[in-house]
Amino acid sequence: MSGYRYPAQEVQFCLEHIAGIERLEPHFPNYGADLLEPILSEAAKFSEQIVAPSNRLGDVTPPKMVERCVQETPEFKAVYEALQDAAWTTLSAPEQYGGQELPRALEVAFNEGIQSSNLSFSLCPLLTQGAVDAIDTHASDKLKNTYLPNMVSGKWTGTMNLTEPAAGSDLAAIKTKAIRDGEQYRIYGQKIYITWGDHLMSENIIHLVLARLPDAPEGVRGISLFLVPKYLLDDNGHPGRRNDVYPLSIEHKMGIHGSPTCVMQFGESEGAIGYLVGQENKGLAAMFTMMNNARQSVGLQGLAVAEAAYQMALDYSFDRVQGAAKGSKDKVAIAEHGDVKRMLWQMASTLSAMRALMYTASVESDLSDQDGQHLARTELYTPIVKGWLTEMAQEIVSLAVQVHGGMGYIEETGVAQLFRDARILPIYEGTNGIQALDLVGRKLQGDQGAALTALIEDIRTDVSHFSGTAHSDTLTDYVNLIEQSKAMLLNNDIESSEAAYDFMMLSGFTIGGWLLLKGTQSDQASAAWQAKTEFYFKHVIGRGRYYFDSLKQFGPSEPIPSAELLKQ
Amino acid sequence: MSGYRYPAQEVQFCLEHIAGIERLEPHFPNYGADLLEPILSEAAKFSEQIVAPSNRLGDVTPPKMVERCVQETPEFKAVYEALQDAAWTTLSAPEQYGGQELPRALEVAFNEGIQSSNLSFSLCPLLTQGAVDAIDTHASDKLKNTYLPNMVSGKWTGTMNLTEPAAGSDLAAIKTKAIRDGEQYRIYGQKIYITWGDHLMSENIIHLVLARLPDAPEGVRGISLFLVPKYLLDDNGHPGRRNDVYPLSIEHKMGIHGSPTCVMQFGESEGAIGYLVGQENKGLAAMFTMMNNARQSVGLQGLAVAEAAYQMALDYSFDRVQGAAKGSKDKVAIAEHGDVKRMLWQMASTLSAMRALMYTASVESDLSDQDGQHLARTELYTPIVKGWLTEMAQEIVSLAVQVHGGMGYIEETGVAQLFRDARILPIYEGTNGIQALDLVGRKLQGDQGAALTALIEDIRTDVSHFSGTAHSDTLTDYVNLIEQSKAMLLNNDIESSEAAYDFMMLSGFTIGGWLLLKGTQSDQASAAWQAKTEFYFKHVIGRGRYYFDSLKQFGPSEPIPSAELLKQ
Repeated sequence: MSGYRYPAQEVQFCLEHIAGIERLEPHFPNYGADLLEPILSEAAKFSEQIVAPSNRLGDVTPPKMVERCVQETPEFKAVYEALQDAAWTTLSAPEQYGGQELPRALEVAFNEGIQSSNLSFSLCPLLTQGAVDAIDTHASDKLKNTYLPNMVSGKWTGTMNLTEPAAGSDLAAIKTKAIRDGEQYRIYGQKIYITWGDHLMSENIIHLVLARLPDAPEGVRGISLFLVPKYLLDDNGHPGRRNDVYPLSIEHKMGIHGSPTCVMQFGESEGAIGYLVGQENKGLAAMFTMMNNARQSVGLQGLAVAEAAYQMALDYSFDRVQGAAKGSKDKVAIAEHGDVKRMLWQMASTLSAMRALMYTASVESDLSDQDGQHLARTELYTPIVKGWLTEMAQEIVSLAVQVHGGMGYIEETGVAQLFRDARILPIYEGTNGIQALDLVGRKLQGDQGAALTALIEDIRTDVSHFSGTAHSDTLTDYVNLIEQSKAMLLNNDIESSEAAYDFMMLSGFTIGGWLLLKGTQSDQASAAWQAKTEFYFKHVIGRGRYYFDSLKQFGPSEPIPSAELLKQ
Repeated sequence: MSGYRYPAQEVQFCLEHIAGIERLEPHFPNYGADLLEPILSEAAKFSEQIVAPSNRLGDVTPPKMVERCVQETPEFKAVYEALQDAAWTTLSAPEQYGGQELPRALEVAFNEGIQSSNLSFSLCPLLTQGAVDAIDTHASDKLKNTYLPNMVSGKWTGTMNLTEPAAGSDLAAIKTKAIRDGEQYRIYGQKIYITWGDHLMSENIIHLVLARLPDAPEGVRGISLFLVPKYLLDDNGHPGRRNDVYPLSIEHKMGIHGSPTCVMQFGESEGAIGYLVGQENKGLAAMFTMMNNARQSVGLQGLAVAEAAYQMALDYSFDRVQGAAKGSKDKVAIAEHGDVKRMLWQMASTLSAMRALMYTASVESDLSDQDGQHLARTELYTPIVKGWLTEMAQEIVSLAVQVHGGMGYIEETGVAQLFRDARILPIYEGTNGIQALDLVGRKLQGDQGAALTALIEDIRTDVSHFSGTAHSDTLTDYVNLIEQSKAMLLNNDIESSEAAYDFMMLSGFTIGGWLLLKGTQSDQASAAWQAKTEFYFKHVIGRGRYYFDSLKQFGPSEPIPSAELLKQ
């Protein structure tokens, strides 16, 4: 096995020739086009050489509870220190707190590498980035000055504490209590599914916790956000005595074994001391501003794990000699067999469509502070990036197992781990069903289709530029399907909660096709890119039509019968 | 959790009103319609009460090597003894050797139950059934009389030893040697992926082994089949001294942990003593006669594991209260949310189509001794049953995980195990790529489309009976797509090795729709069956058209480019 190779060339191609990263230069003084290649080159080295060797170690030596702490996979600490030393944690953070204030798109490019090489590990710095954002956007200057410098440097890590046993997709049901105590608060409650909820890689852990004040309104309008450090700071701002927050246990999960998913107890005795982030009862809004990034990042994880699995399958298909080519007696590598070739191209072409969308969305996200149009586009892309990329990731990791034959089912091969790891992606950070409802409800019906109409116009404009070229007519057909779906959803001609998933998938397949085709218009497009686009339009995009055909049948006059009927 | 419920009613409905099990009565004197319900009722009790409780035990306490033997999961032995005591191992075996000589369709119905409740365990008696078949069909009377009675009773179990490290899909590459030694042979070589290759549940294990004589022709025409017992029989026919065959190790697999997948060493010292089954160099033919059953049985495993996962999701969706129904403030079970309902109906309707095909194929298989038409139909169905059912199983177990949300990813919930277990099914007993090639090569091009044409005619005849009813036009459309695909494949208008998978999937979706619709014509069809058929035609069968649209693009003038292009 050759090991993971960071796809620097394709990332650069997507950023420069599809996503239009040059548009960021005016808004990010620290960024210039000449930075892109060196950063990608360093990202490649870091992910391939430093991170990748740790991936299987996390799977076979998962974290464990040791005296009320989580002891992470032993080898991870050195990787974490290397991450800090190379200042990778500071890429997009504000200069004021020690960050480089570079576009988030570059952070996405770096994250792709570490997510491909060790998804479990990558979640720790990822959640810290999210926590830094939340604090930077919503907290007081005092909290920012106190916590951000050490979080940006990676000295301290961050977590997100949302879910409770009875409050999963429905955060309105949160029960964790926050009691005012002078300037601070005391937090009591249990949180579950807390990723990297505890570990020993950093000297402090900064938990962001959703909780409810005693006099808070019911539902989501009564949720507040608190900063709860594992170790309270002493007068010099150094971690001092332990706060009343402890990991209770680590979940036994199907995958991402290296990532400790904790049950966290806040306030066993005197209450966990917490500091309000933003205003009382506005906590959910604070979480929502992070969601575009967090959700897009899960989409990225889909791309990243699928890329790693695909590379393993590609390598194996050239190493494994089995059977003869058609019309010959000579044994050949299985990469030459028609059905294996089909699987390889299916993976490769879908991955390129996913990557094109990922980086396009990340550049939009960087522009979204500039005006409402970019923000609306970002919000429209987000559920598609999260939903479609993670659904496609399932299919790609499964194909990668399949290419390996029996070896794919043996854990030592490694691709089985990627298959297991990937299965969390359609679930966490809002299930894909929730993404689909978000897309149709908030993003489409919420603005009467304005953001989607703008996207459709952009695609039509592009199509007019490449009209006459191969597949532009097909792309137009798919845009028309989206247009029709939009009308049906806005007019309530179909039951949107039932049809939402189909719409999300149709959108993904269509946008993927658009961006692939956009890439082919560049004179920098490789022969492989051209061939992948060709394969995609012949053999992949057709799934979009299937989803449309299903969607239009969700008429409100004939809803799906109650599931009660299935229980008989 | 309510635990697994054997779907006796639906199995009976499929057998009686779709598969036409009454056609078997003339050929199986021991079988009468009055037997069906009691047998299914006992199968239900056995699978639900005896087998199901052992499933998770196999996952968490997998077999291990103990002094050159495999010690299986401790609780399995009692289950195996109960299986023997209830004579379930004897269902379809010849009366001459202690069997009940009942239709194999009943064995399939029983196997569905134990495969749903413990796939790992079920493989042991399943492989024994296969070995009994092979010996009964091909071995000498002496071998039959010596070995079959104890194998039929379940006192001894059987294995299949085909694969070697360099001979997976390509059995022509087999290197295991067989040296003549008087009446017997001495076997030397290593076999891998040997399911239940060793264990302590039975007092002997009868290995069937493919090997090559020193003077054998090259390739598949030089392979012979040998019977190699773990313990050689003494003069009284009892297991005596150990033969020179040993398990070397147990694979670490992603799933079916309870099933020991062994590396087997034949002939470390004096050679493993083996007895020829059938004629020298005709071993592969002997294996092939078993393949219809073995491959259909893997399809059944897909149905069975998917059914178990679906039931868990259905139960969970009614237990889990989360979020409010549309337009209400009251919390509801997630089964009432549109997107969850969509997933439940998708699983349920696909499962019914799978089950209809499974039992139809099993009855055809029982009829296949009667005439060439039934044999040809069985051979045509076999790769579709194996391929389509196991592909659909992947989607269903994944949906079942998804319905569980975060809980689905936690091992204790149980559905994660089913997800992992199911992933072997598209791989073993011939990968689904091999199934697709078998369908297009041997089964379609091999007889110039005769068997498929006969099937198409049967479907058209049925459609003419239900013409005017809902969806009969849709079904006709799909039959036309199969007809067109057949022509393209026979005329080499498309590259068959690349298009084979699409054709297999198109066939599965179409036949599934046909049989669902056939069921609705019975006055015994439940309201749920009608509703599932409706859902299938609106939201599931459309995937068939996607595969057709892809298939027709595999023109030989524009083959998929070499995968070399992807390595750059």
